[in-house]
Amino acid sequence: MGVFTDASRRHHVRVEIKAERLLADLDSLAEVGDTGDGGNCRLALTDDDAGGRELVVGWMRGLGLEVRVDRIGNVVATRAGQEPDLDPVMTGSHIDTVRTGGRYDGTLGVLAGLEVVRALDDAGVRTRRPLAVAYFTDEEGSRFAPDMLGSLVYAGGMALEDALGTVGIDGAVLGDELERIGWAGEAAVPGPAPHAYVELHIEQGPLLEEQGVTIGAVTGVQGISWQELTVTGQANHAGTTPMRLRRDAGYVAAEVVTYVRRLARELGGHQVGTVGRIDLHPDLVNVVAARAALTVDLRNTDEAVLAESEWRLREHVERVARGEGVEASWRRLARFEPVAFDPGVIALVERAAADRGHRVIRLPSGAGHDAQMLARMCPTGMVFVPSRAGVSHNPAEFTEPEHLAAGAQVLADVLVELAS
Amino acid sequence: MGVFTDASRRHHVRVEIKAERLLADLDSLAEVGDTGDGGNCRLALTDDDAGGRELVVGWMRGLGLEVRVDRIGNVVATRAGQEPDLDPVMTGSHIDTVRTGGRYDGTLGVLAGLEVVRALDDAGVRTRRPLAVAYFTDEEGSRFAPDMLGSLVYAGGMALEDALGTVGIDGAVLGDELERIGWAGEAAVPGPAPHAYVELHIEQGPLLEEQGVTIGAVTGVQGISWQELTVTGQANHAGTTPMRLRRDAGYVAAEVVTYVRRLARELGGHQVGTVGRIDLHPDLVNVVAARAALTVDLRNTDEAVLAESEWRLREHVERVARGEGVEASWRRLARFEPVAFDPGVIALVERAAADRGHRVIRLPSGAGHDAQMLARMCPTGMVFVPSRAGVSHNPAEFTEPEHLAAGAQVLADVLVELAS
Repeated sequence: MGVFTDASRRHHVRVEIKAERLLADLDSLAEVGDTGDGGNCRLALTDDDAGGRELVVGWMRGLGLEVRVDRIGNVVATRAGQEPDLDPVMTGSHIDTVRTGGRYDGTLGVLAGLEVVRALDDAGVRTRRPLAVAYFTDEEGSRFAPDMLGSLVYAGGMALEDALGTVGIDGAVLGDELERIGWAGEAAVPGPAPHAYVELHIEQGPLLEEQGVTIGAVTGVQGISWQELTVTGQANHAGTTPMRLRRDAGYVAAEVVTYVRRLARELGGHQVGTVGRIDLHPDLVNVVAARAALTVDLRNTDEAVLAESEWRLREHVERVARGEGVEASWRRLARFEPVAFDPGVIALVERAAADRGHRVIRLPSGAGHDAQMLARMCPTGMVFVPSRAGVSHNPAEFTEPEHLAAGAQVLADVLVELAS
Repeated sequence: MGVFTDASRRHHVRVEIKAERLLADLDSLAEVGDTGDGGNCRLALTDDDAGGRELVVGWMRGLGLEVRVDRIGNVVATRAGQEPDLDPVMTGSHIDTVRTGGRYDGTLGVLAGLEVVRALDDAGVRTRRPLAVAYFTDEEGSRFAPDMLGSLVYAGGMALEDALGTVGIDGAVLGDELERIGWAGEAAVPGPAPHAYVELHIEQGPLLEEQGVTIGAVTGVQGISWQELTVTGQANHAGTTPMRLRRDAGYVAAEVVTYVRRLARELGGHQVGTVGRIDLHPDLVNVVAARAALTVDLRNTDEAVLAESEWRLREHVERVARGEGVEASWRRLARFEPVAFDPGVIALVERAAADRGHRVIRLPSGAGHDAQMLARMCPTGMVFVPSRAGVSHNPAEFTEPEHLAAGAQVLADVLVELAS
């Protein structure tokens, strides 16, 4: 989709964002669902999420944008272009959070989009194409699985009825909650395909900080494989059962954890592997575990290598289970193929960052983002700014104000160029 | 303490136990605290424990035994000997259970002792020494830690005040509960040292069954080391954090589990090692664990090797923790040195089994028993009978009726010989 050639560089319109406005908006939004420890809790479609939605949509209306709410609660606010019938260039992200969320994850992308609108207004610039700023419903998936649900429905990857019928961890039905908080809109889904989509987001990882880089030009999103492995052995007395007679589910679980580390090391590159959950039963100091359940999270930017990691893991588990005389059963929790962003948009982000004097690197995203759903519809890219210590989904989530500003400025430059 | 020489073989008095009476008693006691699934719940000093105590003490009184209850609730029922001033030969065990207890653990030893009394009555035999049948308070330790509390107090290993002040998992104070159920007796603790102590118990392990053997002549009790290891790393996003930057507490925990297996294999012999508990925090599929807590249960019959297993484990953990950049801290949960039973009693059990035509092997006990506390006071031994599939502390706990009878008969023969 090489639609963004150097020809677009002919347009030298540049607008200047104002960091203090962006920071003030971030502060204001962080007061909604404030957890008192520097963090935020606006789980999707709760009253706090509604509070955040109202605040942000108020800003959108105040900027004179045309606001549309679709049937899954996604909000798209559009600034008219010189040629209003052209497909808009879209930016956005989400304003829902995990239970122990930080202040920047998602919100930065939405509020930076509004700051770009203000900067255009300041400069009196009307772009050729319309510019749309969106926030998508339930990106986190913490209350209603899967994550990125709103953008998935927007992009036509999930039927509206299925999405509305989703039951949350608290037993609530998504459609009921959407009605209850008054955010079930009229606009049809799937939504109209934008001309292009660019999302600013905190990295949520340590690489930019580690390398002293301000801007990441995101090349795509890692493919994700989530599996749950259940190992069934035999409960036995820890004192009376000789080692050779054990069928220890806990031992097999641990062996798998160490293999996941070895596997990631052997595959190298962008391969990561994580066992974040282990539950033993009966979980007693003097009883050999009868059952172990663990999750395996494997990710790679290369689908072939990701698939290889899956089958190598399965083969290893079969071998170890046979040796210990235990049963191993798998359940797939999630599987997404890697997403590659548009080379033209990636190059544009890189160039915009360099033009502003920022150090920039290309990197893949290890986390999922709304952008990967929009990538099904249109040329897409993302701009990353550093996360201190890589921490996210945590009240300690932090990005330096000058990095927030740098990211918003690069976003502005990229959007203006794409809309020209 | 080689007090039991072949000279004792001169006495050829033999009494015959009746299996049906023993089985009937086991059935009756199993009705108290029946969990409806074949199991029993008589946690120490609960109403159900009191119900079991009353039933058994009624049988003791019905047999004309002199019943003494001591200040920690241990019950000792004595059948007079020809020379009543000699120290008695004692047998016994416990009648409290774990929450998901079986029908044989503990109860077999107590009720078989009463069956020996009946067999002596049947035969009109009065032994030279008195014969005492005891049940000790809170052997399981499931409600009030430590386990074997009653026999520990009896043997002088714990002050009465400390024992009475023990707070249970339900917040109850042991001394209050003992008063409440009416089993705080008058007899002093520590109690008088018996001439010898022999306890019949189910193996609670798989070795006798595996080897097709009916009787185990128990050589002693393994030393036990219980430690809790807490590993503190750094929570990180499973997708965005490269492997090389992780400080994964869950990985280190798993590595330790596999090392415990390796260690037990390398040390060989009776060494066993078990990790039965692992708890990760935050225990989420896509978050590298910030903290892991696990328990390590190490046991050996040889104190030197047990100590070696402990320091080798610590050294390994230090090395792995350093490599991963995590903190490791240890907490000692329990430590008992191995107990060696009296060689004369062990040989006597072996010979008595062989005389009755039973296959017999020597083996250590992997579990703790009241006998190990009595071993501080007098020559002590134990008789094991097989546990089906090694299962205990479970409603499925089962020993064949003919094995129960064989154990009771061997106990009778050993007690008669010791009391002659």
